[in-house]
Amino acid sequence: MNAEIISIGDELLIGQVINSNQAVIAEKLASVGIRVARMSTVGDSVPEILTTLAEAWKRAQVLIITGGLGPTHDDLTREAVCQFFQSDLVLNPEALEHIRTLFASRGLPVTKNNEDQAYVPRGCSVIQNLHGTAPGYFFQRDDRSMAVLPGVPYEMKEMMETFVIPHFSRKGTGMVIRSKTLRTTGIAESLLAQQIGDISVLFEKDSGVTLAFLPSPTGVRLRISAGAPSLREAERRIAYVEQKIRQKVQKYIYGENNEELEEVVGRILASRQMTIAVAESCTGGILTDRITNISGSSRYFERGFIVYSNESKSTELGVPAEVIVAHGAVSKEVCEAMARGAREKAHTDIGISTTGIAGPTGGTEEKPVGLVWIGYSDKGKTLALRFNFGNDRRRFKERASQAALELVRRMLLKIDS
Amino acid sequence: MNAEIISIGDELLIGQVINSNQAVIAEKLASVGIRVARMSTVGDSVPEILTTLAEAWKRAQVLIITGGLGPTHDDLTREAVCQFFQSDLVLNPEALEHIRTLFASRGLPVTKNNEDQAYVPRGCSVIQNLHGTAPGYFFQRDDRSMAVLPGVPYEMKEMMETFVIPHFSRKGTGMVIRSKTLRTTGIAESLLAQQIGDISVLFEKDSGVTLAFLPSPTGVRLRISAGAPSLREAERRIAYVEQKIRQKVQKYIYGENNEELEEVVGRILASRQMTIAVAESCTGGILTDRITNISGSSRYFERGFIVYSNESKSTELGVPAEVIVAHGAVSKEVCEAMARGAREKAHTDIGISTTGIAGPTGGTEEKPVGLVWIGYSDKGKTLALRFNFGNDRRRFKERASQAALELVRRMLLKIDS
Repeated sequence: MNAEIISIGDELLIGQVINSNQAVIAEKLASVGIRVARMSTVGDSVPEILTTLAEAWKRAQVLIITGGLGPTHDDLTREAVCQFFQSDLVLNPEALEHIRTLFASRGLPVTKNNEDQAYVPRGCSVIQNLHGTAPGYFFQRDDRSMAVLPGVPYEMKEMMETFVIPHFSRKGTGMVIRSKTLRTTGIAESLLAQQIGDISVLFEKDSGVTLAFLPSPTGVRLRISAGAPSLREAERRIAYVEQKIRQKVQKYIYGENNEELEEVVGRILASRQMTIAVAESCTGGILTDRITNISGSSRYFERGFIVYSNESKSTELGVPAEVIVAHGAVSKEVCEAMARGAREKAHTDIGISTTGIAGPTGGTEEKPVGLVWIGYSDKGKTLALRFNFGNDRRRFKERASQAALELVRRMLLKIDS
Repeated sequence: MNAEIISIGDELLIGQVINSNQAVIAEKLASVGIRVARMSTVGDSVPEILTTLAEAWKRAQVLIITGGLGPTHDDLTREAVCQFFQSDLVLNPEALEHIRTLFASRGLPVTKNNEDQAYVPRGCSVIQNLHGTAPGYFFQRDDRSMAVLPGVPYEMKEMMETFVIPHFSRKGTGMVIRSKTLRTTGIAESLLAQQIGDISVLFEKDSGVTLAFLPSPTGVRLRISAGAPSLREAERRIAYVEQKIRQKVQKYIYGENNEELEEVVGRILASRQMTIAVAESCTGGILTDRITNISGSSRYFERGFIVYSNESKSTELGVPAEVIVAHGAVSKEVCEAMARGAREKAHTDIGISTTGIAGPTGGTEEKPVGLVWIGYSDKGKTLALRFNFGNDRRRFKERASQAALELVRRMLLKIDS
């Protein structure tokens, strides 16, 4: 079954926005065995949308269209779709109700522009938009389907997941593609590849399994994909390869698929009824931000100290001023004192800390930009490890927070660092 | 002058890679007055490349093609281009020399696959690839041009910058396109549109200026674009519209183009030599994370308290336990006490605070998920404002941190909220 994706928006054609929607949609369609044959992007113009739509409708059985469903004058997708199906607009009461509720919950008056969004092309099924005001439309004509979704990434994604993919999954396409991702951290891509070795010996012969290395600043993901006649068979083929990989690099694998490291660490802490406190200098809040992204984190996260100034390191965490003077704020000694101080002050089981030079300026020969100490303290021991995470400020913060969470994971699971 | 971009690669069609090349190319073409009318993505297949290429060649004067020029069996773009122009391959000695030098400099032997890349379609100009082994091709046929470039982003970008864009710039397209973005926050898209009113009266007649509304969870961006015979004229036309927009919605505009709110607030604080401390409950660190994303923020950011537990609100910030018991942790009273406590404890000019229910669970009828108080305190006054930011935990944190930064901006600039 072939699909095409059409993205609509002038902002894409002038390069203001990178189109991430196409990849998200393509990946989800692949998961139910639908192959994307072509992706197109056109501007907010009824004739251009109509032409592109008509061409794609001739070639593909599945069409996913995103963008141009907003409430303003430059949103023209609904009009083009109406012209294409020679259909007029009808009020969808559920959509109207949803729009009113959304505005009410935010304490805002509904405008006429937004109420107008509840008018949808006659003859479509409405795809409710949990996160926004623009409903989506779903058309089924003989063996062809078309989904029209908003371009806002998280609105689109939720509607793909709750409506479009389940629809095709129920319908069945004769082929199932599954993939599973193993998430690693703390090891470079080339070293990971070396430790895994010859990948051909990981696979059963002709099993149609592939392995992709997907590097990111916080770690390398290993994606195993398999196409098979049944879900069960696809999963069996993936499990075979997964086991082989785990035998070789288990200690670096912290999670699977979309699991973030903060989720894994949070689960361990919650299951052991342990609590944690955080002291951040150079990472400036990203570490506590990540920990508290997890719903229920209040069970184990007690408090955090963002101690940017030297004075705050002393008054909040009891790091002796002499230690800061003797070794500098970016030092093993201060880092350990911060982790211990956070734990003792907050009366938690664990304290973690970061101190370093996030850059892009402020480095010296002895302490270059990118240098960071990551500290850990529990009742039994206190330690700090040294890393260098480069001179891009945001990447530095992401990588340092990942290293701090990974240190907690390894200490809790007693994995050698 | 109209252009089309064609991206080639199976990895794009399965969603493994987000296509950032299109936006890079489009932005560069716009800078020399070339408008991209359509972008297409197809797989590594000669027939599919040929079809897409032939269609685009009929519609556009400029074609930019990327991807599928690598040394392996699944790189088929060169073959498709040869078939399209009915051309064979000829050796390009400079390309061969470059490939050999590149391998020598890395201390690696040249493979036959790589040497083969020096064979290029007869009748093209060769675009040298400084960073890789695949040369690009440039075809000029009557009034039409086609550039074929590798898909590796930094190789492609360098070749666009050193060859393709200078070519069109020299040639002159008679037209320059510029755009400027005004960033707003604290007002819904529909309300913003209402306050701006009839947009046609913003523009001079036939000035070729467009206005786009680009919503995101943290605010709506207004993009003004103008095409004109000269850069100066394009900028004048944009300035005309900008001034009209500012007359209507100035108070919501915090920045321009890629400026983030934390940058704007940081600049005001630094210029006034003022300092700030932060107390976060529900936002869990994202607010300090954003503030410290700015290089040089240590000049004004003193410290932050991530006070997740009730006890920490009292011990760290001096919020009286009775106030928490009487009003609950999510209340105006606690929020104000947090902002004041942070300011006094850190001896800063300003304190800001957040307390709310990030969800997705934990709400009650009186205090629903999404409810948040944002507090501000300086020597003269202390206050807190109430918002609701919905039940998506991450969105909630982003929006609440934006509202906190915006409150600081408005207080510092004495703008009514």
